[in-house]
Amino acid sequence: MSIIKPRTLSGFMELLPSKQAQFERMMEILRRTYSSYGFAALDTPAIEDAQILLAKGGGETEKQIYRFQKGDSDLALRFDLTVPLAKYVALHYNELAFPFRRYQISKVYRGERAQRGRFREFYQADIDIIGDGKLDIVNDAEIPAIIYKVFRGFGLQRFQIRVNNRKILSGFYAMQDLSEKSGDIMRTVDKLDKIGTEKVRNLLIGECEISEEKADEILKFISITGSNAEVLSALEGYCGRNEIFDLGVQELRTVTANLTAFGVPEANFAVDLTIARGLDYYTGTVYETTLLDHPEIGSVCSGGRYDNLAGYYIDKPLPGVGISIGLTRLFYVLDEQGLLNPELPSSPCDALVLPMTENITAAVELAEALRNAGLRVQLYGEQKKFKQKMSYADKLGVPFAVLLGDDEIAAGKCSVKNMKTGQQQLLTAAEAAAEIISCLENNGPIILEK
Amino acid sequence: MSIIKPRTLSGFMELLPSKQAQFERMMEILRRTYSSYGFAALDTPAIEDAQILLAKGGGETEKQIYRFQKGDSDLALRFDLTVPLAKYVALHYNELAFPFRRYQISKVYRGERAQRGRFREFYQADIDIIGDGKLDIVNDAEIPAIIYKVFRGFGLQRFQIRVNNRKILSGFYAMQDLSEKSGDIMRTVDKLDKIGTEKVRNLLIGECEISEEKADEILKFISITGSNAEVLSALEGYCGRNEIFDLGVQELRTVTANLTAFGVPEANFAVDLTIARGLDYYTGTVYETTLLDHPEIGSVCSGGRYDNLAGYYIDKPLPGVGISIGLTRLFYVLDEQGLLNPELPSSPCDALVLPMTENITAAVELAEALRNAGLRVQLYGEQKKFKQKMSYADKLGVPFAVLLGDDEIAAGKCSVKNMKTGQQQLLTAAEAAAEIISCLENNGPIILEK
Repeated sequence: MSIIKPRTLSGFMELLPSKQAQFERMMEILRRTYSSYGFAALDTPAIEDAQILLAKGGGETEKQIYRFQKGDSDLALRFDLTVPLAKYVALHYNELAFPFRRYQISKVYRGERAQRGRFREFYQADIDIIGDGKLDIVNDAEIPAIIYKVFRGFGLQRFQIRVNNRKILSGFYAMQDLSEKSGDIMRTVDKLDKIGTEKVRNLLIGECEISEEKADEILKFISITGSNAEVLSALEGYCGRNEIFDLGVQELRTVTANLTAFGVPEANFAVDLTIARGLDYYTGTVYETTLLDHPEIGSVCSGGRYDNLAGYYIDKPLPGVGISIGLTRLFYVLDEQGLLNPELPSSPCDALVLPMTENITAAVELAEALRNAGLRVQLYGEQKKFKQKMSYADKLGVPFAVLLGDDEIAAGKCSVKNMKTGQQQLLTAAEAAAEIISCLENNGPIILEK
Repeated sequence: MSIIKPRTLSGFMELLPSKQAQFERMMEILRRTYSSYGFAALDTPAIEDAQILLAKGGGETEKQIYRFQKGDSDLALRFDLTVPLAKYVALHYNELAFPFRRYQISKVYRGERAQRGRFREFYQADIDIIGDGKLDIVNDAEIPAIIYKVFRGFGLQRFQIRVNNRKILSGFYAMQDLSEKSGDIMRTVDKLDKIGTEKVRNLLIGECEISEEKADEILKFISITGSNAEVLSALEGYCGRNEIFDLGVQELRTVTANLTAFGVPEANFAVDLTIARGLDYYTGTVYETTLLDHPEIGSVCSGGRYDNLAGYYIDKPLPGVGISIGLTRLFYVLDEQGLLNPELPSSPCDALVLPMTENITAAVELAEALRNAGLRVQLYGEQKKFKQKMSYADKLGVPFAVLLGDDEIAAGKCSVKNMKTGQQQLLTAAEAAAEIISCLENNGPIILEK
């Protein structure tokens, strides 16, 4: 038989078992945290009718999408979880209770140019709250409060959720008679972190064709910084000239106050007037999240408030607010930075039961007793020499090997070997379970900040 | 804005939140059970190089596969989890410890003709154990023992794992000088349940061109039934004429004995000589699983032993044994048959906290206290009339509404309303958590057998 060289496509993450164990742990924290706030799990198809996915059309999306024919059908793989959510809510509108809160942790697909740290298949972990006609501003604070919970659950402390409001930006540009150019301006201002003030100013004047005076006015505005109270206070100075602006400041003030009520420390959130989010559909609060020690990574969790989720599919105003964690990229970066806690168990089992007798019945019973105590247990069934068995235990990285020979069986016990210390104890099944469980506890968080 | 009618492609399962909650529960039991036996979680890409996926080529697979170009790449969606596993093991051979035990619960894609209960996107929940060069026969019994555990975990009791051995079949056909026709014969005999003995006999004689005498011999052989001991005893009568046959009987005897050692009751497994499994790569033990009260569904979990997992990708013999649950179809059928337990919580939250004051700080704290006690809690933040709030609680199907007004806050308590009984109690947060938890317990299994 001729051999085809096996490979995994570039831009597709495929982890070894020990890394996958870390990834699964993050998924579990996400599921648990999202569920604890009353979000329903959703699982929409990865393939949708291309016409539906591309209802909005245009831009990068259309270029990057995986689109193909099958029979007469024009199909495409989802490129995010928001468009499928819009379709879902429109399709099942009559069967859902609003506000509708859902989470979805699923893979999405974008045929981007392959490069380090960019993925063509990646997990998004989204939460959204959708209202029917109206949705209270309190939700705009709860969403980042949940993200705070998730990141703390991962073990992170040095992160910051940055909050702004699009109404403030569009109101401000309206005051400057620059509404028509506001899209171009926001895209230019977005580059501030990357290219610096001077180059942004040149672009504003050169490419956006704005007067020097107004360019300076814009730069002055977005350079408002300080504590949240200080930024909000500075914004007061602009109030009374544009209704949209004033509404935005009012909303931002409420979100900021509620974030404190929701228990998010001020160290973990900041009002930041430079946050705009490129996407057109955000209309109010917008979020980005950065790891304070790794600003170069950019935002690891972004989202915002939108007025109309599903306007392409249903004639009902469905305002919502949501946020998305780019999980695959976040995991990749944490791993690259060496931030994944190496102390966490990476073996697929907590104990490897090694029968030393031909009849395996006693070993099966022992393995089952340890499982019933909550452990993950592999029964080693191969006929190998003792040395090979121990070498397998080593390679697997299993914390405990449990040996069961005729002597142990006769004594109603088993030999529990701690693979790290080399210490071996003769214990009953119940004692063995207790011993192993006590050693597995307290391995710390998934992420270790340096 | 013109509206595009939202739809989900036919052959793609998309569940409403309450049904999805049931599905998630089954996934959780699968993950927990598979993990408890020391299987590592794996997550391979949904898209692979088409050349690699189709290395084996031919047949239905090639017709059903979703295959498409992106740039210069010839891509395809996986149609099962076994071929990606083969690629994975070949690619990462040097980094894995053998026996390598992995589980994967992922979606696979087949562009079948759409019909009721057939899915184009569906979950498979697979476990496999791969050896390097050799793999002990004890694994052939552990695999169905784990499946027994999973099905019992779902709440099922009336199911049967049927076991056979391909060596017995090929040895038997060799004895009859029918080796060359054995593929055709097995495919014909596979139809026994559907078309009956007489028609199978006619096909054997007419299409397979077998003498009447041999056709009768075949039918006599596969009609051997009875208890496992009786079937094994009847097989002894054929021994001594073909080595492969004898080896198959020996293996089947060992698997049967070990299944008992693994604690699987005889009511839940049966030696069945009609089980052949169409796939060429099975070379020893084969499994099918039927729901005893719903034989019309066919096998809900199938698999077997193979000599060489990854011969297309690596020049190493990698024998393995594995099994696959067709989860989406199983769920669909259970739902259709009304077997999903309606008593299980289907609401996305256990408690809905309803603030009756403008300041929500106290409500946020209460919700957080209930969450910390392990409950899933939604804070209702909308400014609605009381009646509308309760109507939302009803529509959500939430078991408890927790009301918090000025009086409750002053008393350091909250009003806990059991939505089923209508009973309302004034309780502290800790008492509320205990009350709600006690009512949520003991809702029974996922599946209720009639």
